[in-house]
Amino acid sequence: MFESDKIRGKGNDQGGRERIAIERVWPEIEGGKFPIKRIPGENVVVGADIFAEGHDDVTAVLLYRTMKEDTWHEIRMAPLGNDRWVGSFRIEEEVDYFYTVRGYLNEFSSWRKDLEKKIKTSQNALIDFKIGAQIIEKIAKSAVGENVKQLRNWAQKLTESNDPESALSVATGKELLNMIETSLDEKDGAMYDKQLLVSVERKIAAFSSWYELFPRSWSGTPGQHGTFKDCERLLPEISRMGFDVLYLPPIHPIGETNRKGRNNSMVCERGDPGSPWAIGSKEGGHKAVHPQLGTIKEFKDFVKKAKKYNIEVALDLAFQCSPDHPYVKEHPRWFKWRPDGTIQYAENPPKKYEDIVPINFNTEDWGDLWKELRSIVLFWAEQGIRIFRMDNPHTKPFSFWEWLIDEVKQEYPDTIFLSEAFTRPKVMYRLAKCGFSQSYTYFTWRNTKKEFTEYMTELTRGAVAEYFRPNFWPNTPDILPEHLQFGGRPAFIARAVLAATLSSNFGIYGPAFELCAAESIPNKEEYFNSEKYEIKQWDWNRQGNLKDILTRLNRIRKENPSLHITRNIRFCQIGNENLLCYYKATGDFSNIILVVVNLDPYHTQSGWLQVPLDELGIDKEKSYLAHDLLTGDKYIWQGETSYIELNPNNSPAHILRVRRQLRREQDFDYFL
Amino acid sequence: MFESDKIRGKGNDQGGRERIAIERVWPEIEGGKFPIKRIPGENVVVGADIFAEGHDDVTAVLLYRTMKEDTWHEIRMAPLGNDRWVGSFRIEEEVDYFYTVRGYLNEFSSWRKDLEKKIKTSQNALIDFKIGAQIIEKIAKSAVGENVKQLRNWAQKLTESNDPESALSVATGKELLNMIETSLDEKDGAMYDKQLLVSVERKIAAFSSWYELFPRSWSGTPGQHGTFKDCERLLPEISRMGFDVLYLPPIHPIGETNRKGRNNSMVCERGDPGSPWAIGSKEGGHKAVHPQLGTIKEFKDFVKKAKKYNIEVALDLAFQCSPDHPYVKEHPRWFKWRPDGTIQYAENPPKKYEDIVPINFNTEDWGDLWKELRSIVLFWAEQGIRIFRMDNPHTKPFSFWEWLIDEVKQEYPDTIFLSEAFTRPKVMYRLAKCGFSQSYTYFTWRNTKKEFTEYMTELTRGAVAEYFRPNFWPNTPDILPEHLQFGGRPAFIARAVLAATLSSNFGIYGPAFELCAAESIPNKEEYFNSEKYEIKQWDWNRQGNLKDILTRLNRIRKENPSLHITRNIRFCQIGNENLLCYYKATGDFSNIILVVVNLDPYHTQSGWLQVPLDELGIDKEKSYLAHDLLTGDKYIWQGETSYIELNPNNSPAHILRVRRQLRREQDFDYFL
Repeated sequence: MFESDKIRGKGNDQGGRERIAIERVWPEIEGGKFPIKRIPGENVVVGADIFAEGHDDVTAVLLYRTMKEDTWHEIRMAPLGNDRWVGSFRIEEEVDYFYTVRGYLNEFSSWRKDLEKKIKTSQNALIDFKIGAQIIEKIAKSAVGENVKQLRNWAQKLTESNDPESALSVATGKELLNMIETSLDEKDGAMYDKQLLVSVERKIAAFSSWYELFPRSWSGTPGQHGTFKDCERLLPEISRMGFDVLYLPPIHPIGETNRKGRNNSMVCERGDPGSPWAIGSKEGGHKAVHPQLGTIKEFKDFVKKAKKYNIEVALDLAFQCSPDHPYVKEHPRWFKWRPDGTIQYAENPPKKYEDIVPINFNTEDWGDLWKELRSIVLFWAEQGIRIFRMDNPHTKPFSFWEWLIDEVKQEYPDTIFLSEAFTRPKVMYRLAKCGFSQSYTYFTWRNTKKEFTEYMTELTRGAVAEYFRPNFWPNTPDILPEHLQFGGRPAFIARAVLAATLSSNFGIYGPAFELCAAESIPNKEEYFNSEKYEIKQWDWNRQGNLKDILTRLNRIRKENPSLHITRNIRFCQIGNENLLCYYKATGDFSNIILVVVNLDPYHTQSGWLQVPLDELGIDKEKSYLAHDLLTGDKYIWQGETSYIELNPNNSPAHILRVRRQLRREQDFDYFL
Repeated sequence: MFESDKIRGKGNDQGGRERIAIERVWPEIEGGKFPIKRIPGENVVVGADIFAEGHDDVTAVLLYRTMKEDTWHEIRMAPLGNDRWVGSFRIEEEVDYFYTVRGYLNEFSSWRKDLEKKIKTSQNALIDFKIGAQIIEKIAKSAVGENVKQLRNWAQKLTESNDPESALSVATGKELLNMIETSLDEKDGAMYDKQLLVSVERKIAAFSSWYELFPRSWSGTPGQHGTFKDCERLLPEISRMGFDVLYLPPIHPIGETNRKGRNNSMVCERGDPGSPWAIGSKEGGHKAVHPQLGTIKEFKDFVKKAKKYNIEVALDLAFQCSPDHPYVKEHPRWFKWRPDGTIQYAENPPKKYEDIVPINFNTEDWGDLWKELRSIVLFWAEQGIRIFRMDNPHTKPFSFWEWLIDEVKQEYPDTIFLSEAFTRPKVMYRLAKCGFSQSYTYFTWRNTKKEFTEYMTELTRGAVAEYFRPNFWPNTPDILPEHLQFGGRPAFIARAVLAATLSSNFGIYGPAFELCAAESIPNKEEYFNSEKYEIKQWDWNRQGNLKDILTRLNRIRKENPSLHITRNIRFCQIGNENLLCYYKATGDFSNIILVVVNLDPYHTQSGWLQVPLDELGIDKEKSYLAHDLLTGDKYIWQGETSYIELNPNNSPAHILRVRRQLRREQDFDYFL
C-alpha cells in the first residue's frame, strides 16, 4: 500500500469517533523496525505525545507484556506538560518484551475539572451533578466485578445530592477517580499502531570484563605450541584478576598457502604458525580445532573448567577462509575468482591479505551459504559456547546478521554476540540494531577531554543508548595505539581505568596489556613481533605488571552497581584540560562513583573540581566522604569545590566512592 | 502484523543479497503518515543515510513523480559525509508529488577507487583491468539502447589494455562513469520502503495578505444593516491597499434564542444584530445567507466583483449552531442534551456561550453528520468560494478534518483551509498535519526579542517548517492584545511590519486595525463595543489611519520575493533588547530584505547592527546600499557594523532592501 493511501484514509477502518492522537513514541528505533535492548532489572522509560482535540482530559496508559503473555500490564503515565506523557516499567524476566501506549478520553475527569471551576465562581451546578452521574453510569457499563456496583452507588449519590459541597467531595474522591481510570471503555481510547520490542539478554551482555589471549603462546616452553590443557593453568589467575569472559582468537586449523611469516611477512619461515584468522586447511575448517591446540573434547573440558572459575569462554568467529579451506573446493561459488582463474584474496588497497580469501556474500548460492554459516555457530553453541566475537561483521550484509543472530537465539536464547567492527559510525550502529549485543567502538582512539566527552555523549544520549552497548578496548592484537606506545605504565593504567569505568563492558588483549608491551612497527599502531604471526613467551609476573591494578579495577566494578551501567554517566567541571572527571550513580543514588583521570602520562596535573552536590543530593554545608577505591585513600570534603592533584607516577586516577551522609557510627566503621 | 514479526523477518521476501540500508529519510512527518506542503516553484530537499556494509561505493538516487505519473524522475544525490546524502527537486506543477530514495552498490566505482590506489603505490594492476571489464560487461546487461554497445566498447578497451596509464584514463572517464551510474541494475539496489507525499497547493496558500471585515457595518447609514452590495464599494480601496484575501465572518442567518446584546450581554436590546457565529434561525442554517446581507445571487456577484480586483473572498465556516438552527430539530442526536431535557450550550468554565450549541462529534450518528458538514463546504465551493477559514477546528476530531479536507480537495483541488485554532501547540500542529493549508499562531502574544526569536525558530526549523504555514494576525475580532491597547500608532505599525515580514501569510481585522482602535474591556484583551455584537460605523479615512502604510507594506511584500517565504528567516545581532533584526533572502540572494523593528513604542532605540556580510556574500571592503522601502531613505554602508536608530514616532521600523554590489552605472540609476 502506498503511504498516500494511508494518508487518504484508504484501508482505515477506525470509526469517526476516534479522537486520540499519539505521536513521538519513544524509544522507537527506525520507526520500530529494530528493538531496544535491556537486561533484567533495567527499566524501560517510555514517552509519548498523547492528546485529543478540545478541552477533554486525557488518560495515558503504558502497556507492556512479555513475549509469553497474551495480556497487557497497564501503567498510568504521568503528564510532563505540553501533552507529553511518560511512564516506565521494569524488566523482570530474561525474555523479550513488547510495549506500546494507549490514550483514553476521560470525560469524567473533564467534567470534574469544569465542576470545580463552576463552584469556585459560584455558578449553580446542581444540574451538573446529574450530568456527572450519567457519565459514571456510562463508565459502569464497561466496568467489571465489584466496580459496577460501586460506580452505580456513586452515581446515585451524585444524582440525589442537593448540596454542592458534599457532591463535590464525592466527585473528587480519590477512590472514585482511580476506579474510573481503570474502568475506561476501550472504545473511548486509541492504541498506538505499533507494538515495540525490547530484546532482553542476560546480565553479562551489559556488564562484562573480557580477557583475550592466544592459547598457542602458553606452552611454557619456547618454540612449543601451547594447548588448551596448558591454558587451564591460567584460569586461576584470570579469575583472580576478576575477568569473566575469556576470549580466544580463532582456534581452527590454519592454512599453509600464502601463510604469513613474522610481522606479516610474505616469507614464511619453517615453523611459523601463521595467522589464526587464515582459517581452514586439509585438517578442517570452521568446525575443526587446530590439532596442535588439542581436540574438541579437550576444548570442551577447558570450557567446563573455566566455568568453574566463573569464566565464560568466548570464541572468535571469522567468516573468511584460507585458500586451503575445504569450502574453496566444495563451494567454489562462495568465492570470487579473477579472470586468470586464481581466487581473489582479501585486499584493502594498498593492503593485501594473501593468506585469506573473503566469502562472496553476493553469490547466487547465498541461501546455502547462510545455512552453512549458521551451522558453524550452532556447532559451537552445542559445544557449550554462548559468547561469540564476530570478526569484521561490517564486511558482511546487515540482513545476514539480522537473520543469523535471530536464528541462533531461537535455539540458544542466551547467546551473546560482540561486533568487532572498526568502521564508519552508521555501519557500526546498524550492526547493533541488527542484533549484536555488544560492539567495539572508537574508544581506542579517543584521547582528549573533549573527545571523551563528545563520544560518551553520543553513546549515552538519544537512540544510541537504547540499542548500542559499547565494549571499550584499550588495545587489541591489531591495535597498539600511539598513546600506549609512548605513555608508559601511567598511560596503560589510565586507559584501563577509563575503559573499565566509562563503559560497563571492557576488555584487554593480554598479557600484552598488563605487561605494558609498547613496541610497535615504526609509525604504525601495530605491535612489533605481533602475536598474530608467532608464538610468544610471556613473563606474566614481570616487574611492573598491572595484574594487581586490574584485579582492583574489576573488584571495584563488581562491588559498585553504578559501574554496571554505561548510560548513567555525567561529566563534571574541572579546570584543567588534562583532567577528565565524571560520575556514575545508581537510580537511587545509593552508589556513587566519581572518577578523575589524568590524561597526561608525564606530568602531575591539578585543578579545582566542581562536585555537582545538587545532582548528588549532598548538603552544601555538611561534610561527605570520598573514598579512593584504587589507592584506599580517604578524603573528607565539604562544599562544591575540591582540589585534585594527580601524579601519574603514583596513580594517574582517582576512583572515588562518594558517601552522601556521614553519620557518626558510619564514620567510625568507615575509618577503621 | 506485529512489529516483532517484521523484526523477525517474517513476511520479508527480500533476497539475501540486499545490502543497502536506508535510514533517517527527511523530510518525513510522523513516519510518513502526513504529507509535507509545497507550492509550485518551491524545492523539496531530501536527505537520507544510505550505506552498505564493507568498502563498496554507494550511489544514492532521489526519486520523485507527480500523482499523475507512473514513472520516477531520478536525481543523483550528493554525499555530505558520514554516509549522509542529499538531493532536491523542484515542484513544477500544482499537483501532489511523491518522493523516495534508492541506493545502489556501485561495484565499478569501488573497483576504480582501488585501481587508483594500486597504481599510485605501483602495484601491478594488469589483471584488475580485466576485472573492471567484467564489471562493465555485467552492467551492460541491464543497460538500454546505445549504452549497451558503448559499455561493451569500453570493456573491450580495458581488457585489451597493457598500459596502466591509458587503462586508467578509460576507467576514470567522466562519460563512462555517468553511463555506469544511469545503467546500474535495480537488483543491486534497494528502495526506501515508503513513498512520501508532497501536498502541493497554489501560491496563495504560502503567500497571502488577509483583510477581515464585517459586511453588516458598511451600509454607510447609522443603524442600518450593511449588504454585500454595500461592500462592493469597498473593493477598490482594499485592492489598492494590496490585500488579496477578503475574509468575511459567518454570513448566515443568526439565531434569536439567547441572542447576545452589546458587549456579550445576556440582555439583548431590540435591534441588536447578534453574533454572526450564532448560526442558524428559521431562515436557514449554514447554507443560507443572512437576509439582511442579501441573497445568494448577490453574494455570488460580490465574489465575482472582488475577483476583478484580484481579491478572493474567504468564508468563515463555524461548525456550531444557534439553538434555533434547523439541525437542532432535524438532527437532535447531533447535540448534547442535559438531564433536564434542555440542550447543552457551549461553555468553557467560567465562560458561557448561551447563544451557541456545539455539535456533539461523539454522536453515534457521526457518519451522517460528517456527510452533512461536507455538503456545507461543497455548497460554498459551488458558489465560487475556494478559501475557508475554519472556526475553532481544535474542538472537532482530527480524523474529521483529515477526511473533510481530503474529500473537498478531491472535487475542488484548489481549495485552501485556514485553521483558526488558538490552543495547545501539539493540537495546532496536528491540525496542520491533517491538511490545513495555513494556521493561526501565537504571534499575537509574542512581544520580546527572545520570544520572537524562539517562536520563529520553532516555526521555521525542523519538521514544523515542512507542514505548518503560519498566518500572523496582529489583531482579530476576538483579540485586542495588550501591546495594541497601550502602544498607540507606533505599536500598530510595528505589529503590521512584524506580521507582514516575519510571516509570508498575514492578516488584519479591519478597519479596527488601520484606525488604531484600542479601547478594550478593562483588564481583558477584548474590544469594547465589539463588532461581534453590534453594527459599527467606521470613519475609514480618519486622520492617522494606516492605510498608506499598509499599502506600502503589501507592495514591498509583492515586489520582494524573499518575503514570499517564511522559513528563510535569519536573525541578526544587534546590541539592544528593544531592537529586533532579521533578514530574508531568496535562494540565489538576488533579493535580500533586512528588517529592523523597534519593539518599544514609546522611546527612540539605537544600537550597532552586525550585518552578516559573509552569509550575504558582501565584500567587507566594499560599500553596499541599504534602501529603506518603507520610508524611501537610502544608506550607503560598509563593513560589518551599522548604527541603527529608530524613533517610533517617525518610523518604528526599517525594511531595507540590501544590494550586494554597487556598480557605477547602477549607483547612478539607483540614486536618481
